[in-house]
Formats: sequence, C-alpha cells, structure tokens
Amino acid sequence: MSLPTEIRADLGRFLATLDASSAIGQGRPGGLCRLALTEADRQMRDLFVQWSNEAGLRVTVDGIGSIFARREGVEDLPPVLLGSHLDTQENGGRFDGIVGVLGALEVVRRLNDLGIATRRPIEIVNWTNEEGARFSPPMVASGCFVGGYDLEWALGLKDAEGTTVGQALDAIGYRGPAAVGGREIDSYFELHIEQGDVLDRTGHEVGIVTHAYASHGILVEYRGETAHTGPWPMARRKNALVAGARLLVAVDDLGWEYAATGGKATAARLSASPNKAGLLSDWAEAVCDVRHQDPEVAELMRVRMSRAVAEAGIRSGCETRILDQWSWGGDIFDAAMVGHVRDAADRLGFRGLELPSQAGHDAYFLAKHVPTAMIFTPCKDGITHNHNEMATPAMLEPGLNVLLHAVTARADRP
Amino acid sequence: MSLPTEIRADLGRFLATLDASSAIGQGRPGGLCRLALTEADRQMRDLFVQWSNEAGLRVTVDGIGSIFARREGVEDLPPVLLGSHLDTQENGGRFDGIVGVLGALEVVRRLNDLGIATRRPIEIVNWTNEEGARFSPPMVASGCFVGGYDLEWALGLKDAEGTTVGQALDAIGYRGPAAVGGREIDSYFELHIEQGDVLDRTGHEVGIVTHAYASHGILVEYRGETAHTGPWPMARRKNALVAGARLLVAVDDLGWEYAATGGKATAARLSASPNKAGLLSDWAEAVCDVRHQDPEVAELMRVRMSRAVAEAGIRSGCETRILDQWSWGGDIFDAAMVGHVRDAADRLGFRGLELPSQAGHDAYFLAKHVPTAMIFTPCKDGITHNHNEMATPAMLEPGLNVLLHAVTARADRP
Repeated sequence: MSLPTEIRADLGRFLATLDASSAIGQGRPGGLCRLALTEADRQMRDLFVQWSNEAGLRVTVDGIGSIFARREGVEDLPPVLLGSHLDTQENGGRFDGIVGVLGALEVVRRLNDLGIATRRPIEIVNWTNEEGARFSPPMVASGCFVGGYDLEWALGLKDAEGTTVGQALDAIGYRGPAAVGGREIDSYFELHIEQGDVLDRTGHEVGIVTHAYASHGILVEYRGETAHTGPWPMARRKNALVAGARLLVAVDDLGWEYAATGGKATAARLSASPNKAGLLSDWAEAVCDVRHQDPEVAELMRVRMSRAVAEAGIRSGCETRILDQWSWGGDIFDAAMVGHVRDAADRLGFRGLELPSQAGHDAYFLAKHVPTAMIFTPCKDGITHNHNEMATPAMLEPGLNVLLHAVTARADRP
Repeated sequence: MSLPTEIRADLGRFLATLDASSAIGQGRPGGLCRLALTEADRQMRDLFVQWSNEAGLRVTVDGIGSIFARREGVEDLPPVLLGSHLDTQENGGRFDGIVGVLGALEVVRRLNDLGIATRRPIEIVNWTNEEGARFSPPMVASGCFVGGYDLEWALGLKDAEGTTVGQALDAIGYRGPAAVGGREIDSYFELHIEQGDVLDRTGHEVGIVTHAYASHGILVEYRGETAHTGPWPMARRKNALVAGARLLVAVDDLGWEYAATGGKATAARLSASPNKAGLLSDWAEAVCDVRHQDPEVAELMRVRMSRAVAEAGIRSGCETRILDQWSWGGDIFDAAMVGHVRDAADRLGFRGLELPSQAGHDAYFLAKHVPTAMIFTPCKDGITHNHNEMATPAMLEPGLNVLLHAVTARADRP
C-alpha cells in the first residue's frame, strides 16, 4: 500500500539527530572532520547503534564494519535496504551522507510511531569508509558487500600512517561477525544532498536521480632518485615530485578541455618524499580522477589520463607504477525504483527534477546487483566537502518525506 | 711563511674523524640523515667540541648555534676562519660539508703536531642549518653572521612540525652566549666536495673555485577553497594543489629551456592540505629555485619564475603569497684568496682546475664581507644529497692538503 499523503516524517526529531551528529568530530567552524574508523567515527557509530536499539531494530555489524539495523517485515522476504554513510571528509560538512543514514532512521521511527508493518523487512545501513578520505579507494565497504572488491584486500588498505582498515576496525571495536554481503537484498534507496547546485539554482525541492556521472580514478606511484637541487644536470634528474606535478597539471587541463559539456577532472592528492628544499624527491604518489555524464566521453578522458600518467613518468625520468584504479557510475538506476521516487514526489506535491548524480556514492555499487534509486535534497550553492556545506530544514524536508513514502511503497509492493 | 711541501695532513687521522661522523645519524645504507639541531646533530656537535677541546682550542657558541674553535696566533689579529657544516639533508651523504669542518680540524691538529705557530689566529667554524632541509632558507647562520639576515627572524623560522630554530637550539643546548658576527675576520676558507662531476669526469684532483652560480629561490603559499572533487564545476574550483603543481611544472620547464648553457631549475617541495582524495585542497606551499653561472641569465630566470608564481595562482583561482625569497652566488671570490689555493695546489703538485661552484654554500655569504675562497674535492660521478655520495681517500687527500697549505700561508702573511 501507499502511505496516505498526510503522513509525514517528524522533521524536528530528524533535525535533533542531525544536531547530535554535528557535535561529534567537529572540524572547522560549522563543519565536521570525522574520518572513517577514527575515535569520532566510533562515537557516532555508538550513538547510531543506541538509537537503532531504542527503535527496536536488530543491529548487526559485518566484517568490514558496515552497520545494519533491521526492522522485520510481515513476511520473510529479502529486505529493502536504505542508508548511506556517517564518515566525512577532513574538511567535511554536517549533511553529506549523514542525512541518508539519519533520514533512514527517521523513516523507521515514523513507521514505529504509527504502528505500520511493512510486507518486507526494512534495513538501515551505514557503509564504512564511503569517503575514501582516510583509506583509498572510496566506497570500499559497499564494493565488498556486492562482491566488487575482495574483502581481504580491503582490510589491508592503509591510511597515510600505515594503519590498515583491519587494524582500525579492531581499534574501535567495529570488526563485526556478520558476513560481508552474500545475501539477497530486495532493493536499495539512498538519500543524499545533491553536492551540486542544480536543484538550488533551479528552485527544485527534490532530485530524482536517474543515472550517474561515469568516473574513473587512479592512484599512481613515481620512483626517481634523490640528488642535489643545484649542480645535478637537468638531463640526469629523476625528480619524482616533478612527475607527480606533471600528472596533476595534465589532469587539470583535461578537466578544462571537457568543461563545456560538464566534464570534470581532479588533481586530488600529491605526496612526495623527501620533499625538502635542497633535494630532489625520489618518491611521489598522486591521486586523480575524471568524470563525465556520458560514459563514452568519460572513457575517452580515462584513456587520456592514463596516457598522462605514463608521460609524466617518462618526461621526468621516473618509474611509473599504477597502484590502484577504480571506476564507478555510468549506471542507469532501476526504472521501477526511480518510479517509486518520482511517484512519491508527485503524490506529496514536491517540485522534483530528474538529474544525474555527479559524485561517487555507495548506491553505484549496489545498482550493479540490486534495484537501486537515489533521492537528492538541494544544498546551498552546491557547496560540499567544505565546512560551509548547508542544507536548511526546508531543503531537507521534501527529500526526507519522499524517502519515507518511496521506501514504504517498495516494502509493501505485492 | 709557506709550509715545506713535504708537510702533509694526516690522512688516516682525518678519515678516522670522518668514520666517527658517519656513525652519527645514519640514514639509508651508507648515508646520513642528520638534520640541523636534531638529537643526531647534537651528538655530532658534542663530538666536534670534544675534539676541539682535546686539540687545545677555545670553543665558543654563538646565539644561533654556530660553533667556533680558535687556535691563537702569535699576534692579536683578526682570525683566518675555515670550516663548513656538519648537518646533512634527509637523504644526505657522509662527505658534503662535513669534509670541510673535519678537514679544518685536521689542519689545526697537524700544526699542533709540528708545533707550528701562525701569525694570525685560526678559527674553525661549524655553521648551523646550512642545508635548509629542516629550516628554510639554507645557510641561515652564516647569513646572520655577516648581517645578511636578521637574527630574531632566523630564530623564529619553523620546521614542518612548527618548532622554531630558537626552540630547537634550546632543546639541544646549543644557543650560545657569543654574539652572532659583529667582529673582524681576516678571511674565510671552505673545503667542500664538488657536488658536481666536473673534477671526476676530467681527472682533476682539486677544484680552485673562482666564482659561484647565481641562484634565486622562492617559498610560495597558495590559498584556495575546499570543495567536492566531483560535481564542483571547473570554473569555480580554487584547488591550491593545482596552483602548486602548475608552478613546479613551469619551473622544471624553465630548467630545460636553459639547460644548454648549464642552467638548472628545481621543483624542490610541494605540501598541500587537506591533500586527500575526494576533496580540493585549500592550501599549498611550494619551494623552487633557478641557477645559472651567468648572473644576468640567472636574473632572467628569476623574473620568469616570479611570473610563473603569479600565473599558477591566477590560473587556479588561488591567492598567491610569497613567503620568502633568497638569492646567493654570482660572486667572484677574492683574487688573493683564490691565489692562495692555486699556489698551494701548484706547489704540492696536484692537478687543479678553476671552476664555478653550483651549489649553495656558506662561503657566499662570507664572500660579501670577507676575502673568501673555496676548495673542492672531487666526488664520484657528481652524486650528492644521496646515500651513494662518495669521495674516496684518494679524492679527499689533495683538497685536504691544499687547505692546510693555503690556510697556513694566509695566516702567516705579513
């Protein structure tokens, strides 16, 4: 059945959970710095588990730390999954994926308030390390869940200090006993702020996400040789820092070449060693990516980025090693699932807009295996991954209610 | 008087001091990591002070930690100063400036052995933070000694962890009571490995340094804004990491443009923050420099580097701030002092070559105020600032003896 349109989420209660979250792992004024599997992340996870228990949900944690909070259905069917992630970037905002997890909690609380049972179980999920800010690549837990990544490999990923995902999970007590994936899921919904300015700029209240920008990322290592910055002839230099810088500039240029059709390319990270005045660096590591809403153009950009990776090494006399590559997006979300979102928006009378997602999301991994849809709330001026990220209550309310109604409709479908 | 040519330094004793030094602050196999004012630097300083005391020298430490070890002359005249530095790069070699300080010690020990008194006092010096590897800029203590740098400013320079030169001096107990400079010096000799391959390649035994490459360095800060690496449009990005990378590539290109006449340009350091996958960086700091043996060409390169500094900021939408700039070299060493070196090489029968110095040296600051000369030993294949840096005993012996004879001649001149 569909819920009557008068039934709405409790916005005040939802905002109170968001406020509590905003106090854990505070970063720059107004922002959060809650990197995956840190002490701040543990505190937030503990609070989410407490809320879930209080809501009568059965909480399980899987082998890579993703948390599932299950509300049983009337029948023993695969669950409707909904959620996102509670971790943030180093200079992250208060909304991002947090809205998706706490929004899912509000959906369940509201159904509890009203004593509404659904045919299928409903499960909230908080995915580990969505951001990729501490451990590269991002979306690693949802990737493992659907079998796209190898669990052992993921547990061995290291942060900048050399701590592995496995060690970090043990340190905060979130390496759970549940199997990672390997079970049937009915469908997946993810509510998220848009992380772009389309909804805000065009005055739409909710985003009905139809597909995703195709994105290709790469982690590259260059190895050269240390030498004196003075007398060493240019032709004998093997400065790994220059190799990394050449790659980043080439990738940024690539972004500009495709900007007319909305393409983006990002020089995200460059680390070098010894990276000191007076000395050429013999090691550098760089992370960059390209994105385009047309998968074929994104593939062209990927090929050109790969060429830039090799060229930067050759021109700097350094050895090039590709440590990791990842791709996501390009998927068309499930038509029936997008239909649930569109119907809910229409029935509730919100101005919805069909649009592509530009950022990376756990939903992309899920979409490859499970009917999936995403719902976007507007965010002010598209600012995100920044302490000035802002989604006002008025911006959050439509998406939250669309989630409530779409999930219930899906969970109750015959 | 000139010493009889049969009188030679005690090579074995000199090599023993070099061996002792090579055990303090070991880095990669065969190399040293003895950054200025660290615990390893303190150990080396303590050993040098002990050796100086044992040689009957009067040791004083000045307000920026430079150590002076004085052997009195027959007359109360300004001293002949000789020395270099005991600190190294992060991936430093065992020879570099160490040869100059320990070579100076051997000169004094040999004069002691023979009971030879000189007319002028002879003073050995170990300059603080020559390398600039921990605190930027390099050669900071010799700069203060001649009044080229302000002492308070130098004491406030910070390393990557935020520790100041003053704090680091206090931590190892080497902030001395002696005034920094402000006294008359007769002349300055510095023995150093060439840090280039000219002597090794051409089979010369000793380098008679006539002038120095002119070098211009810069420390730049870029400020942008963090944002999501995905949806944020290229035209709104203010990625400080890209600004830094654009500068480094432009500077490296500049080096290649002037390589035909021996010019060099170096991208030495790039730090960014947050510098994480998923996020544009809002802060970056870069160090780079240009060098040419023709001061006019070096000036042209400097102007072009300055333009690249501004362009990199503008093209990346970032604010540009020049935090520091430095220049050195270009000087012609004192003709009479170069004559002392040339005469000693000739009298001792060594194959000497007149050549410019390409690296930065404390001697450049001294040369602006005091008659100064440098003596180079060959080093294998020109490799330096690298654990494979090598100067064999046969390579060191001629320069060491030229230092002994040139210094004695200078100290005894009427």
